[in-house]
Amino acid sequence: MNLLENLNWRHAVKAYDPTKKVSQENIDKIVEAARLAPTSSGLQPFQILVISNQEIKEKLVQGALNPECMRDCSHVLVFAGWDRYTTERIDKVYDFTTDERGLPRGRFVSYTDKLKEIYLTETAEANHAHIARQTYIALGLALAQAAELKIDSTPIEGFNTKVVDEVLELNKLGLKSVSLMYVGYADAELDWLTNMKKVRTPKEEFVIEIK
Amino acid sequence: MNLLENLNWRHAVKAYDPTKKVSQENIDKIVEAARLAPTSSGLQPFQILVISNQEIKEKLVQGALNPECMRDCSHVLVFAGWDRYTTERIDKVYDFTTDERGLPRGRFVSYTDKLKEIYLTETAEANHAHIARQTYIALGLALAQAAELKIDSTPIEGFNTKVVDEVLELNKLGLKSVSLMYVGYADAELDWLTNMKKVRTPKEEFVIEIK
Repeated sequence: MNLLENLNWRHAVKAYDPTKKVSQENIDKIVEAARLAPTSSGLQPFQILVISNQEIKEKLVQGALNPECMRDCSHVLVFAGWDRYTTERIDKVYDFTTDERGLPRGRFVSYTDKLKEIYLTETAEANHAHIARQTYIALGLALAQAAELKIDSTPIEGFNTKVVDEVLELNKLGLKSVSLMYVGYADAELDWLTNMKKVRTPKEEFVIEIK
Repeated sequence: MNLLENLNWRHAVKAYDPTKKVSQENIDKIVEAARLAPTSSGLQPFQILVISNQEIKEKLVQGALNPECMRDCSHVLVFAGWDRYTTERIDKVYDFTTDERGLPRGRFVSYTDKLKEIYLTETAEANHAHIARQTYIALGLALAQAAELKIDSTPIEGFNTKVVDEVLELNKLGLKSVSLMYVGYADAELDWLTNMKKVRTPKEEFVIEIK
């Protein structure tokens, strides 16, 4: 099936079958789609934590809008963005990029200097707001990859970022949780959305063409 | 090709061939992927403007980091988010959703009341920051759709939102530009990225598994 068919197939699952687990191979593919996501200036300012440990999941549940979903899904993916941009982080990405491309380090220094000039004079909050946006590109692609594999998923903002950050000790990694993605197999009887029509803004209201 | 192959195929094109245009059929598919994107609470708080008019493109160029790219690409997609959430906007989406599903209007009133309680007490800036994140999910899926069609594209934050908002009179629509996507066919000779290796954070640094 192509992307549009996959996007029409998926929905935000509201109940998971706790007995069904997603294979490591398929988790790897979902994470890979997120890893390949484009990000602003190629900085990839985030990591993904993949939680299948049930005890940890139970700890993350506090403050979640759909606690049963988090408990019963197979894996919880945590999209965690850098707390801020730093010289070291920017240089690390660009040094790695030039090394991988067989180019001299510093090849993009005029560009990275500009990035530093912009980001390092902003507050950590402004940095993180920009970083958080990038994680949503990856979230979308991870959802599309799950759909391609006919694996159910739920994109989640309804959780307590403070709880998740503390349980996973994200501050030690210089990260802050932005969104979650539940992955697993739906409990078709309990998932009230299963048989509902997918509704989107009609095309004529969504698009404005200027020819 | 599957999604991972398509994501490996694509890159942020740095130069377009101005003589090659993308068909309406393919533009429609790219826009459709964005339209099908999931968004927080299903509100779809954005629209896409599709600009192929060369005069308008010339006006948008001011302040763009890659002006030639904007001029030479076939179509510029503008991802424009609501300036803020309102009672009317939330009700319109949920009324349409219940109508489409054959449910009584107000079926989700306890949920929409909660949304209003959260969003309508926030500033417009805080609303728009949340809204902007949602547009990135759609941006990612639109990029993936272009790649599936072997159409080149470039995700763009490097532009002057004020210029774009003014030229397109987005304030009259209650919208603010968030990101752009250039769509077209690369000029392989001028696009310096064409032959460069795609570089991403290695998997072992990108993922943390908690089993």
